[in-house]
Amino acid sequence: NNSLYLFLNTFMFILSFIFCSRLFHSHSTADPQFTEKYFPQIMDHFNFLSLINATFSQRYLITDQYWRKGSGPIFFYTGNEGDIWEFALNSGFITELAAKQGALVIFAEHRYYGKSLPFGKDSFSLPQISLLTVEQALADYAVMITELKQQLAASACPVIVFGGSYGGMLSVYMRLKYPNIVAGALAASAPILSTAGLGDSRQFFHDVTADFENCAPQCRDAVRNAFHQLKELAERQDYSVIQSKFALCKPPSSAQDIHQLNGLLRNAFTVIAMLDYPYSTHFMGSMPANPVKVACQTMLSGPDLLTNLRNTAGILYNSTGMLSCFDLYSLYVECADPTGCGLGFDSMAWDYQINLCYESNNLTDMFPPMSFTEADRDSYCAKRWSVMPRPDWLRIQFWGDALSAASNIIFSNGDLDPWANGGVRRSISPSLVAINITGGAHHLDLRGSNEADPESVLVARKTEADLIAKWNPLEPQH
Amino acid sequence: NNSLYLFLNTFMFILSFIFCSRLFHSHSTADPQFTEKYFPQIMDHFNFLSLINATFSQRYLITDQYWRKGSGPIFFYTGNEGDIWEFALNSGFITELAAKQGALVIFAEHRYYGKSLPFGKDSFSLPQISLLTVEQALADYAVMITELKQQLAASACPVIVFGGSYGGMLSVYMRLKYPNIVAGALAASAPILSTAGLGDSRQFFHDVTADFENCAPQCRDAVRNAFHQLKELAERQDYSVIQSKFALCKPPSSAQDIHQLNGLLRNAFTVIAMLDYPYSTHFMGSMPANPVKVACQTMLSGPDLLTNLRNTAGILYNSTGMLSCFDLYSLYVECADPTGCGLGFDSMAWDYQINLCYESNNLTDMFPPMSFTEADRDSYCAKRWSVMPRPDWLRIQFWGDALSAASNIIFSNGDLDPWANGGVRRSISPSLVAINITGGAHHLDLRGSNEADPESVLVARKTEADLIAKWNPLEPQH
Repeated sequence: NNSLYLFLNTFMFILSFIFCSRLFHSHSTADPQFTEKYFPQIMDHFNFLSLINATFSQRYLITDQYWRKGSGPIFFYTGNEGDIWEFALNSGFITELAAKQGALVIFAEHRYYGKSLPFGKDSFSLPQISLLTVEQALADYAVMITELKQQLAASACPVIVFGGSYGGMLSVYMRLKYPNIVAGALAASAPILSTAGLGDSRQFFHDVTADFENCAPQCRDAVRNAFHQLKELAERQDYSVIQSKFALCKPPSSAQDIHQLNGLLRNAFTVIAMLDYPYSTHFMGSMPANPVKVACQTMLSGPDLLTNLRNTAGILYNSTGMLSCFDLYSLYVECADPTGCGLGFDSMAWDYQINLCYESNNLTDMFPPMSFTEADRDSYCAKRWSVMPRPDWLRIQFWGDALSAASNIIFSNGDLDPWANGGVRRSISPSLVAINITGGAHHLDLRGSNEADPESVLVARKTEADLIAKWNPLEPQH
Repeated sequence: NNSLYLFLNTFMFILSFIFCSRLFHSHSTADPQFTEKYFPQIMDHFNFLSLINATFSQRYLITDQYWRKGSGPIFFYTGNEGDIWEFALNSGFITELAAKQGALVIFAEHRYYGKSLPFGKDSFSLPQISLLTVEQALADYAVMITELKQQLAASACPVIVFGGSYGGMLSVYMRLKYPNIVAGALAASAPILSTAGLGDSRQFFHDVTADFENCAPQCRDAVRNAFHQLKELAERQDYSVIQSKFALCKPPSSAQDIHQLNGLLRNAFTVIAMLDYPYSTHFMGSMPANPVKVACQTMLSGPDLLTNLRNTAGILYNSTGMLSCFDLYSLYVECADPTGCGLGFDSMAWDYQINLCYESNNLTDMFPPMSFTEADRDSYCAKRWSVMPRPDWLRIQFWGDALSAASNIIFSNGDLDPWANGGVRRSISPSLVAINITGGAHHLDLRGSNEADPESVLVARKTEADLIAKWNPLEPQH
């Protein structure tokens, strides 16, 4: 039904924020050190029946300016859902470490994102989109690394993979499935457990809530009460009041509109929690330093909770103050990213891929009850994409929490990040190392150095650098 | 061209003998201990666009008569190219070990073989056959193990995979790719290196030759000289002499026929070398004990080398003495297996899968020069199946010789087996153990105990049993 569809759009939009690092990393000007290239990639690694359209052009960025040619390691970023330039320009730690360790740096773009579209703009139709899978993406990276090493006379150079968020999951999977190619992985903020269906579907919004509660319990209460007031207005169908309080361009007129509004608002808190960096970042305009603190100050700034709630959402949606009103559906449907969200393609690809059943319930979190069950997912995927999710598959194919046979993986997480507890939080062995970054938001450690960095992330980066150096069999061990 | 096609049929026939264990294991009567069942298996693990025909029935055999329910290990045979009953009935070591270690035993049939045909008898058309890949087969086993463990309340029971030849390769790959599911692997006579293109294309027929040379250098010389005589007759187009000497049903009439004859003859030596067991086995009638010795006695039994060569080939092709003449093309094309070779389906599937470029050259071996280059393979695969081989893929996907990140694999090989040196012959680590079986032919260790077993295979089986017991975390360690 339409209501479900719109809800899911909302949900997918939230997720696109959640994972889509490019939306919230600061935008710097193009870094000239990277050269943009294209790799002729195999279209379908798992079916040999592909003489026609056998390859597509996969984009990657490369810089050898730090590389000790033929002996230094290769740092390979396993691109995730978006334009690869955004990851390259917002993962300064990798190039900083490359300068120290003499590494070649490659950022590879994930198939179906950015400019790496196997079937051009037809990539998002059926059946073309069915070659968008994690397995294909990993095989892309395995083939690309193997061939580039040959081309670059780098066969002896160990490859370390890096990734954040879904990109971090891909880095883990590369080390699990291709340790012949990848000597180790730094997986920053990679929720490999929750995405595999391990864990509690309530954890995510609980942890978003906790960030605000830890800032001030009154903040959490104000958010909950504001949502409650909105609920009461909606139940009375006081739509003009709702329009006015939330500065909506059009008055809501249905439960579906209210659902959309609730999703938009919940998403603001989610993104603010994930982006709770100690310095300002650029995302849809500007995000202030310590945005959770700013949000809580806003929630507690005056007697009218609904106004406070609108202004808090404005931290995300109207940071420039340029929007005179909020258009719920254009914000959602069009992905609302000023960089264009891949002309809409990236958000379609991500809608096809993403596969999470998280819920808010107003008991373990401060948000309105909004769930997305496996049944919801099944019907959405069947209706929208004619596909059937297989909930056990990630656990089977990518090991779930049965990781003891693996080695040389760093699982870093920041304790401010609501994704953190969907990942590996405790070391499993001396070479499967969990790092906690106190006061760290979503993959803070991958970002370049900043004067406002907390000590915890400096320590984390040092530990990461030491472990990565140890994985290089060509380096003298200390 | 036709000549290549026929040559390749010859080649494929050879390979079907080489790998197809069921052709040369002794046939015992059906063992009632196994129950035959079918598992609803996912048709395409790597493409979610499959709401129609989403599953097929995959056959497996199971016996719990030795199992310590809920705690004993699960011994899982990763079926290879053929009817699963043949593997179950000719791998007595597995059930003997199950009796000792209290294991549940499962033999799973490989997709596209036996009765596990995803599209029934249409499975071998294009594009249906394209779901016949190693990756799909491994995913079948991973999904099957996971679901059967749930059904059988066996979630705590470690799974050990077993396989011989290509089945042993699958066992290795299961441990590499799914150590979350598989605690260890016994890979008997698994040529994982040569099949991945690592090694020397001349090794295989060199080692076949060595078996006969080690029996008697004169034997090798007699074979070489016999093939040389055949070559001279063929050059003179003395086809009626050739027909008479080789008891062919029809006289050869072309270079293509001679090529076919050479392939048939070379194959006899190959199979005899692989089957050089110390006791008689049943295969197209009866194979004597120590068949290499018998073949050499035959090669040296009289002054006419061509007659000796025919009689040696007869050890394989006419062991019952029932054939009054050899029909080259019916022997090859129809696969010539009295059990039916899967009504021809299994040999078609294997033709699609197999992917080896071995050569004989009459310099490093005793056979006529017969090569199968990558270019030959490319054109054959394109013409016959509309597919394009990817020579690097096995090394990328299944690690080639870069196995150091793996653990808990036994690579057993017999030094009489021409496949042995295409496998792992030296231990890589304390848990990646190579076992050599002196005087052992193709996966002798997987066969049931026999009074004529050499001491070496008894020692190998003991080592294997001890390692497998160690992989069971529920067992007290000695």
